Amino acid sequence: MTTDIRICFVGDSFVNGTGDETALGWAGRLCASAHACNFPVTYYNLGIRRNTSKDILGRWETECSLRLPETCDGRVVFSCGVNDTVIENGAVRVPPEESCANVREILRSVTKYKVLMIGPPPVGDDSQNERIMALSQLYAAEAKILGVQYIDLFLPLASDVAYKREVLGNDGSHPRSSGYTKMANIISSSSSWWFYAP
Amino acid sequence: MTTDIRICFVGDSFVNGTGDETALGWAGRLCASAHACNFPVTYYNLGIRRNTSKDILGRWETECSLRLPETCDGRVVFSCGVNDTVIENGAVRVPPEESCANVREILRSVTKYKVLMIGPPPVGDDSQNERIMALSQLYAAEAKILGVQYIDLFLPLASDVAYKREVLGNDGSHPRSSGYTKMANIISSSSSWWFYAP
Repeated sequence: MTTDIRICFVGDSFVNGTGDETALGWAGRLCASAHACNFPVTYYNLGIRRNTSKDILGRWETECSLRLPETCDGRVVFSCGVNDTVIENGAVRVPPEESCANVREILRSVTKYKVLMIGPPPVGDDSQNERIMALSQLYAAEAKILGVQYIDLFLPLASDVAYKREVLGNDGSHPRSSGYTKMANIISSSSSWWFYAP
Repeated sequence: MTTDIRICFVGDSFVNGTGDETALGWAGRLCASAHACNFPVTYYNLGIRRNTSKDILGRWETECSLRLPETCDGRVVFSCGVNDTVIENGAVRVPPEESCANVREILRSVTKYKVLMIGPPPVGDDSQNERIMALSQLYAAEAKILGVQYIDLFLPLASDVAYKREVLGNDGSHPRSSGYTKMANIISSSSSWWFYAP
């Protein structure tokens, strides 16, 4: 059994940690915590600003295969959705049914790696949040059908007044370090997380 | 003038921050410091373990173009070399003249972004260090010809006994957080660094 665990976090600006002045984001925090628990994981952050599920479908395999050789315990964490729900030119960037189909195709195509999905977080705009919540539920259903663990960020953060205040005080979409710490805590508190320590 | 600065750090495991239990590496530390100086940069870490100059030549443009839209102030930091000097099957993985030609081609092909090069650091093995030092000098000469700023890591770290002790106590090549902090300090103390604050 190899202890050479390498994790690619593939997604959007929330995966990237945009707005986090510590440059860690939730993904970096989770990897630092894994190190502290004696899992010296290799951390590859592949979050890209403005990326939708379609963008991720188009690039995830190329980028992950360059980073996860067969000799390692390769894992991939996906997270997307917020950008799909953004309205541009009078329509959402990616309609929910297409967004779900993209996620289904992504999750189905992961055959070589352990996989996990993290749901999209809420933003500062209430009407967009309705679309994000609906999409997160659809994603969760897709993941369940395919037997992929899904960790929801939307519900715990949507009820967090301080989180929303931080987002609105920043750029309206992204939190700063406090919010990213909350996301990391929600994920690491889930028994679906690989390094969950109750 | 946009203040939307996005930086891709393209390179090897040292760029990735392999071995750093804080999950920041030198690149993450530099971006956190930039934030603290009111430059809220977007941080893209594209370091890949085992990557040589040839691997980086093959992927840098595809990966950076997905992350640096024309509307932002896009920048790229390159760093490689240690893996080129590794001996496999009786020969170095990439001979020095080929390694230099790769770096030359990379630096010449960067036309859309501001660019900076960081030299390879020393490892725990003295004979490999001779090859790394020679390669770093060749890289510096290439960068100078092309008018690209080059920050040397080799000399300041090679004379640092504590750095070498940390590398040898870890995996023989990579330091832990103290060593990555030293690298970040060497870079941020250089007037070639974009956010240099004397």
